[in-house]
Amino acid sequence: MGAALATTLVSGQDLLKDSPASDWRALDPENTLYAELPAGRVVIELAPSYAPVNVDAIRKLVRDRYFDGSFVIRAQDNYVVQWARPEDDPRAKAMAGVKSKPEFARPMDAKLPFTRLAYADTYAPEVGFSSGFPVAPDPKRKETWLVHCYGSVGVGRDNAADSGNGSELYAVIGQSPRNLDRNITLVGRVVQGIELFSVMPRGKAAMGFYEKPSEWIAIRAIRVSADVPAAERTNLEALRTESATFKAWVASRANRREEWFKEPVGRVGVCNVPLPVRAASR
Amino acid sequence: MGAALATTLVSGQDLLKDSPASDWRALDPENTLYAELPAGRVVIELAPSYAPVNVDAIRKLVRDRYFDGSFVIRAQDNYVVQWARPEDDPRAKAMAGVKSKPEFARPMDAKLPFTRLAYADTYAPEVGFSSGFPVAPDPKRKETWLVHCYGSVGVGRDNAADSGNGSELYAVIGQSPRNLDRNITLVGRVVQGIELFSVMPRGKAAMGFYEKPSEWIAIRAIRVSADVPAAERTNLEALRTESATFKAWVASRANRREEWFKEPVGRVGVCNVPLPVRAASR
Repeated sequence: MGAALATTLVSGQDLLKDSPASDWRALDPENTLYAELPAGRVVIELAPSYAPVNVDAIRKLVRDRYFDGSFVIRAQDNYVVQWARPEDDPRAKAMAGVKSKPEFARPMDAKLPFTRLAYADTYAPEVGFSSGFPVAPDPKRKETWLVHCYGSVGVGRDNAADSGNGSELYAVIGQSPRNLDRNITLVGRVVQGIELFSVMPRGKAAMGFYEKPSEWIAIRAIRVSADVPAAERTNLEALRTESATFKAWVASRANRREEWFKEPVGRVGVCNVPLPVRAASR
Repeated sequence: MGAALATTLVSGQDLLKDSPASDWRALDPENTLYAELPAGRVVIELAPSYAPVNVDAIRKLVRDRYFDGSFVIRAQDNYVVQWARPEDDPRAKAMAGVKSKPEFARPMDAKLPFTRLAYADTYAPEVGFSSGFPVAPDPKRKETWLVHCYGSVGVGRDNAADSGNGSELYAVIGQSPRNLDRNITLVGRVVQGIELFSVMPRGKAAMGFYEKPSEWIAIRAIRVSADVPAAERTNLEALRTESATFKAWVASRANRREEWFKEPVGRVGVCNVPLPVRAASR
């Protein structure tokens, strides 16, 4: 990929600016969540192709207003923030025993888009992007899975594989914890506003849990974008990871041409390629 | 490495607890900096074996109290915080033209300790650890260099390779920006307190710079540990990365055996192995 595009490299920002509108897609309002924090809105894109059961469960919880009045209860440095209703809340208690299907990986399927990254990965035989999400398909296992990168959103669980049910969610705020891949269900990733999570004070109890409820950070509401009045939506477009512009974007990240860089490394990791996202044109 | 140790795997915390004292080393007070922030102390270990000229320059600036009254002027999400004296400060002006030797890499040397990580890396032919620091030796280039991981500390520079002089420093607070490797001088890494940097409000100007001086976060002082009265020191020990305990620690990170993990991945990235650090026993 790098070699083929090397002669046409321009700066990443320029190639995005000059890209055809058809290389962008509006986020699907049914698969977009808004988490309303005191500091503002976090926009999460869900990945129903990779975790259909858990995405459905979360969408249903959101529509039941389960997360209105939930809290960020954990912020572990270089790892994750996690949010839930308080343990002793009646609705949390009602969810405590609910099991759900682990969707740690899914069968490979030629119908799933896949743009392969041509560089070695520590954790998986192949990595790349599928409809905007970083993924690792493994032809030997005949499975593919979402990988943990900065901003990835997943379903917290206890020790049992089926103990996650969508009522506790986490977002990655540090170095990609790839050892979680295939061990927990990822459902999507933050496409805007991750910095509202990443600056949260770190919890001082084990695993970054806050010691006291007074430290919890309120989540006023989580909404499905489709349920939000048009005027209040955050209308975003993401670069199609199957587009020529995205391939050029990857190449521009692997070979930074800005004057500052002295020795472009010619490679880029799957978690070092930010997904270009912009305000929708209308 | 993984295979040889697989039969003796215990949890990471247990093996640290049971490790011989000789597998630990006290941080060298001459190569340890304390950055005193409003929220507390950040402890930085310097790597004079990899950047002798820049480490000397920084130690001298610190002893000249150059950083007392400096500020964190930049916090870019998923990237770096950066600190310096204000641009219009006379001492900053005096440093503005000062050049220093770029130490982006150094010649390989059999005398440098090296514990190789047995897993593929996206960016370098080999990676591992040298006296506590993540490094990438390249036999073909006959060079080795410090790599950018969470907590790495480096020398900010302008476009010219020799324009960094130690008067502006940065620390990594996000996904390892490995494309900076060999492009900028790393001088060490944060061994305690990185979370004081990582929670700082993100700057809203380009590249995460704060828009207004009122947003800057004061650094009261930076000190060389050796210059600090014994009673005021933070006495830390780091696990020797050449020790058997460290090799077992790496294996325990590659193959998490805690009950929670369902499918240990059997691999670990160079930036996913935290350096065990603890309070010195006396």
